Amino acid sequence: MSNTFGQLFRITTWGESHGVAIGVVIDGCPAGLELSEDDIQRELDRRRPGQSKIASPRKERDRAEILSGVFEGVTLGTPISIIVRNEDARPVHYEELKDVYRPGHADYTWEAKYGARDWRGGGRASARETVGRVAAGAIARKILERVGVEIVGFVKQVENSLISANIVKTLENAIALRKEVESSIVRCPDKKVSDQIIKLIERARKDGDSVGGIVEVVAVGVPAGLGEPVFDKLSADLMKALGSIPAVKGVEIGSGFACAAMRGSEHNDTFQKFSPPYEGGVRGGLVTETNNAGGILGGISNGMPIVARIAIKPPSSISREQRSVDKSGNPRTIRVGGRHDPCVVPRAVPIAEAMMALTLADHWLRARVSKVD
Amino acid sequence: MSNTFGQLFRITTWGESHGVAIGVVIDGCPAGLELSEDDIQRELDRRRPGQSKIASPRKERDRAEILSGVFEGVTLGTPISIIVRNEDARPVHYEELKDVYRPGHADYTWEAKYGARDWRGGGRASARETVGRVAAGAIARKILERVGVEIVGFVKQVENSLISANIVKTLENAIALRKEVESSIVRCPDKKVSDQIIKLIERARKDGDSVGGIVEVVAVGVPAGLGEPVFDKLSADLMKALGSIPAVKGVEIGSGFACAAMRGSEHNDTFQKFSPPYEGGVRGGLVTETNNAGGILGGISNGMPIVARIAIKPPSSISREQRSVDKSGNPRTIRVGGRHDPCVVPRAVPIAEAMMALTLADHWLRARVSKVD
Amino acid sequence: MSNTFGQLFRITTWGESHGVAIGVVIDGCPAGLELSEDDIQRELDRRRPGQSKIASPRKERDRAEILSGVFEGVTLGTPISIIVRNEDARPVHYEELKDVYRPGHADYTWEAKYGARDWRGGGRASARETVGRVAAGAIARKILERVGVEIVGFVKQVENSLISANIVKTLENAIALRKEVESSIVRCPDKKVSDQIIKLIERARKDGDSVGGIVEVVAVGVPAGLGEPVFDKLSADLMKALGSIPAVKGVEIGSGFACAAMRGSEHNDTFQKFSPPYEGGVRGGLVTETNNAGGILGGISNGMPIVARIAIKPPSSISREQRSVDKSGNPRTIRVGGRHDPCVVPRAVPIAEAMMALTLADHWLRARVSKVD
Amino acid sequence: MSNTFGQLFRITTWGESHGVAIGVVIDGCPAGLELSEDDIQRELDRRRPGQSKIASPRKERDRAEILSGVFEGVTLGTPISIIVRNEDARPVHYEELKDVYRPGHADYTWEAKYGARDWRGGGRASARETVGRVAAGAIARKILERVGVEIVGFVKQVENSLISANIVKTLENAIALRKEVESSIVRCPDKKVSDQIIKLIERARKDGDSVGGIVEVVAVGVPAGLGEPVFDKLSADLMKALGSIPAVKGVEIGSGFACAAMRGSEHNDTFQKFSPPYEGGVRGGLVTETNNAGGILGGISNGMPIVARIAIKPPSSISREQRSVDKSGNPRTIRVGGRHDPCVVPRAVPIAEAMMALTLADHWLRARVSKVD
Repeated sequence: MSNTFGQLFRITTWGESHGVAIGVVIDGCPAGLELSEDDIQRELDRRRPGQSKIASPRKERDRAEILSGVFEGVTLGTPISIIVRNEDARPVHYEELKDVYRPGHADYTWEAKYGARDWRGGGRASARETVGRVAAGAIARKILERVGVEIVGFVKQVENSLISANIVKTLENAIALRKEVESSIVRCPDKKVSDQIIKLIERARKDGDSVGGIVEVVAVGVPAGLGEPVFDKLSADLMKALGSIPAVKGVEIGSGFACAAMRGSEHNDTFQKFSPPYEGGVRGGLVTETNNAGGILGGISNGMPIVARIAIKPPSSISREQRSVDKSGNPRTIRVGGRHDPCVVPRAVPIAEAMMALTLADHWLRARVSKVD
Repeated sequence: MSNTFGQLFRITTWGESHGVAIGVVIDGCPAGLELSEDDIQRELDRRRPGQSKIASPRKERDRAEILSGVFEGVTLGTPISIIVRNEDARPVHYEELKDVYRPGHADYTWEAKYGARDWRGGGRASARETVGRVAAGAIARKILERVGVEIVGFVKQVENSLISANIVKTLENAIALRKEVESSIVRCPDKKVSDQIIKLIERARKDGDSVGGIVEVVAVGVPAGLGEPVFDKLSADLMKALGSIPAVKGVEIGSGFACAAMRGSEHNDTFQKFSPPYEGGVRGGLVTETNNAGGILGGISNGMPIVARIAIKPPSSISREQRSVDKSGNPRTIRVGGRHDPCVVPRAVPIAEAMMALTLADHWLRARVSKVD
Repeated sequence: MSNTFGQLFRITTWGESHGVAIGVVIDGCPAGLELSEDDIQRELDRRRPGQSKIASPRKERDRAEILSGVFEGVTLGTPISIIVRNEDARPVHYEELKDVYRPGHADYTWEAKYGARDWRGGGRASARETVGRVAAGAIARKILERVGVEIVGFVKQVENSLISANIVKTLENAIALRKEVESSIVRCPDKKVSDQIIKLIERARKDGDSVGGIVEVVAVGVPAGLGEPVFDKLSADLMKALGSIPAVKGVEIGSGFACAAMRGSEHNDTFQKFSPPYEGGVRGGLVTETNNAGGILGGISNGMPIVARIAIKPPSSISREQRSVDKSGNPRTIRVGGRHDPCVVPRAVPIAEAMMALTLADHWLRARVSKVD
Repeated sequence: MSNTFGQLFRITTWGESHGVAIGVVIDGCPAGLELSEDDIQRELDRRRPGQSKIASPRKERDRAEILSGVFEGVTLGTPISIIVRNEDARPVHYEELKDVYRPGHADYTWEAKYGARDWRGGGRASARETVGRVAAGAIARKILERVGVEIVGFVKQVENSLISANIVKTLENAIALRKEVESSIVRCPDKKVSDQIIKLIERARKDGDSVGGIVEVVAVGVPAGLGEPVFDKLSADLMKALGSIPAVKGVEIGSGFACAAMRGSEHNDTFQKFSPPYEGGVRGGLVTETNNAGGILGGISNGMPIVARIAIKPPSSISREQRSVDKSGNPRTIRVGGRHDPCVVPRAVPIAEAMMALTLADHWLRARVSKVD
């Protein structure tokens, strides 16, 4: 169950980073949806490393092949199996560290749980596992786009450089922003902040170090009424979905942690019948003047943009020397070689969008059974 | 599914705040555990309002009755059904607002989802729903205590007053801290901060307003190896568990959002064979010098204290005048009457502990099937 | 999970036969359904023992109380909790056998699984557990009746006395048959067979023995398109649903075991555009001349009546002397005292109907998410 | 969810009969199990058609490739993805019937559910779907063999020719029987009945017709204590597992439908401390003199051989002329061409064994969490 996400739009991912292949099976995609391999490839290409000077030079072509569930260009209602062969696998880089517990990595915990581990590049603990999420997310996104939902994510912060404003407000604005995001090699739509971030990442790389950051992901056009009121709140499911992305240490919705210092009179979003700045992204007739709720009240969407943020830790694989211990508990001094990103925040953007899309598609289906006709 | 939490230690809660009763069914509690109604009552008493001068004066005796699953003082392995009758129900307070959407509440979203709602005190959207969680959490806690796990939560911040240090480190320290927490009427173990918080809450009440805050909850003595590596990461499941508590807008583990501004060399926790400050709370032989990971690496526990924090918004029910709209979209000016807490952060402590306990008990059972013998 | 049935219309039952109470929580009932305690009581009254001279003289009033999920006579979309207090509990009957494994009962297997058991009347292994199923089934039935589905069950065979014809064919015929069924104290709508069965049961009682039989349950008016094609075939889910009723040793659909001796040319049901004998019970435009399929092709309903049969073993509690062993493996000669039915086949009818209703209601909801709009 | 089976040992199958490939993902296989592609190939080879003169001459090499979850010959605890490429795909055979509803097939019901269907060889409704089940079943079997469980299935009946005795009683006997089964081209271990069956099948083929039959599958060496007492009874889960195999119309356990005509004194299996004919296949210390229970009491295994039988309808694809209707409801006369088995009963044997193995492996894991230590 560990490898399955979703109740009705349900995905199961599989694969180790240096095994034969990785993939995903999507069960519960409704019949009748147009779908091609290009739809999936587009998102996989965004996730892939090696796309710019600031990222890892690994080459992963990541060609998605659809093996089932689609016939004559349309989904059948049967499971959609997608496979991506692993290509640029060089386990030799990892062999020397196979008896050492790398700090910040899952080496030690994995052995505690399973008794052994695939030490080749982290095995299934590698972020390469997210290929399956992104492939499935591309399908979820197609379902949502049919009903007018747009999802856009971007880098909000890296180290101490950040965008402070709320910049996604309407459907039109979300679509436009997506282009700006993709035109920045660090996926930051604010040109000035983008330039700062590029410099911060380059400095970290020179230092043999790495940096963390924050991704914001917003869904605009979500109908009111999605989410379940108790455990499967839309907010709680998003927290799990986004919190399950490798390296995430925190998740917040709307006002997030800032709410702790606020008063109710300030935090409550006032309802209105109509509110120009938001109209493009609103469903259901009412809007709120502010959006501290982040589009979710009592666990259910209210039609306003759904706003989530995730904190991503600095990558644990750094080239500078670190102390650790080996399997016998002996102290060891290590350097984690290989080709690692000094900052994974930009690459987390399409993954966060995918997890948002998967969560919303699932709740969109679940909302179909909440009332008698 | 909305009302069920957990895979193997699985609870289903039910009940509206002003209905006949509320309750919970626990399915999957192993046979052979000693259990009495007192075990449950103890935790329910901590959750109950009306316990101090700063809290709501509502009287909810909340007597738990075990209806099944226990025979001769020991669990049978069958579902444990627990019921709490609702007593102090005065729906008249709510009748005048039944056609208005209260800002910050789930009135509007509930109607968008279900077509109608129980307007009596929020119905199932009321935080009274958490009675079932706390009752079930008391059982989860008993399972965990058998294997040496202690859970302690406390108020870390209200408005701008906060405890900044990491104060839970060892098993002994956690047990001791629990007493200090309970001796503060706002569940803040730092006497000075506790006094400040009491003042802040009283001021908010006088202003007809409310305040938010942060709860930290820590589990000490958790064995290494709990959690699943992909979607059901222990961290992700905790985020969902804690994020499903009413009014929570953010969840973080270990370093949390602070990781965004950190570098890898600083964030990576160095492994050691032995580390005195942590020994009481550590399982599995290795410790780390720091605990930015919050006890979880790659989604699996590493034996260090598990540290989580939740941000709780200021209560939406405030007595000062607010603008809103009614069901027809007409503007209305409202005052939310009744007896409401100006700050729910202290009452969230036992609920957060319960959700932590439920998540850990579930993963403790799940860890039993991860390896062949 | 053992105590939960269904994916979207999901019930969790709880309670031991001689505990405080038994009950059920229904999660996933759509909002907006009219529901009263009478709807549930009507079905519980059919399940209750002590209704005729041939049944156990135990008195179980079995008053159902709805504790949540219904507001102003309509379902809220929240969990519906139903409780029935246990009344006529006389554990003294069981005390003398608490160290002996009664033949045919779950005493031994329960201890093998859980290490201990509630020996009072079988505890949760008692057929009294089905109270929760029947209560939940009454709600499932209301959902189905809104869309024109009628379910009728009856006793087809007891010992060697049986009805051989296929007697349920149309909606009108099903509704009419239900009355005939209820007018027979053994729920057999064929007067002659009913009289034979009454005699067989009385003879078995006189002999201190018991008899088995077969129940047939038919759903008429089921739309084509319900069921999932692989594991969750409507047929497979019905087999599990009906097969989980205590004492059931076999389940068959349509032609059932008779298909083994048939040829394809004989077994294939020919499609037609219209076929008078079936029109009342058919949905979807096509009918088949025969109904060997029992209304299900490839796991999905075809609009024809769904026909299932279950074989029910003779009750294991018989008053004549039997050999067995006690917990230490010593031979013992026992008589199972108390008030036991020599034949439970008639009482299985409302239970089988409930399980059919629960399965169909679940798949009716699931069918809502199989296609894009 | 339709395509997933199991709670803890959980498989998800995918693939259409004439698509690119078919496969299965196994999630929940414990780490540390030795596993090779040969283990899987062995069972797939038994399922494959074209193995004898009486079966379909289709050529399906069905080479299984393990893509993940196994490292250095041992399972990792991660999902095991297995793929089998489709080779002998000739959709042209099916094109002429793509607008007609073949009697006995899922053409019509599939369209009712999904709005369209993959008409190439039944698509996912084809029995080729069972490749994934058999591959996964081979792994389940390895888990069970480690703890001494042997599963053997055989053809008990075809048309009116049958084996009437109970022939599997001990572990040794089960292992021996398996060889006899495999030495018969119709998987019937009774030489005389085997010869009769071969003749019956050849006669049916000559007649352009098909025949049904019964498969019995027995598990010997199953420990007492597997199964859950209410909905997830081992018997009920087996009924669903076996009942989900294509073409199955009935399932029975132990005495099965014969119980209907029995009396309690005859049906109750007497407990004994020791009983020679069964000792090899018994776990847990007690045995019963007879085995009407089929190894399951109250839904939980009692240590005796688990005995199940399934009724398999005659294949719907017959070469003789049949009447049907097309999508517009017009009458059509059809002949189902292609290469079809006149009897699928022998090929159902490894599939039934696989479903038995999957169910037992799942419950074997589930039994690990039933008690506190």
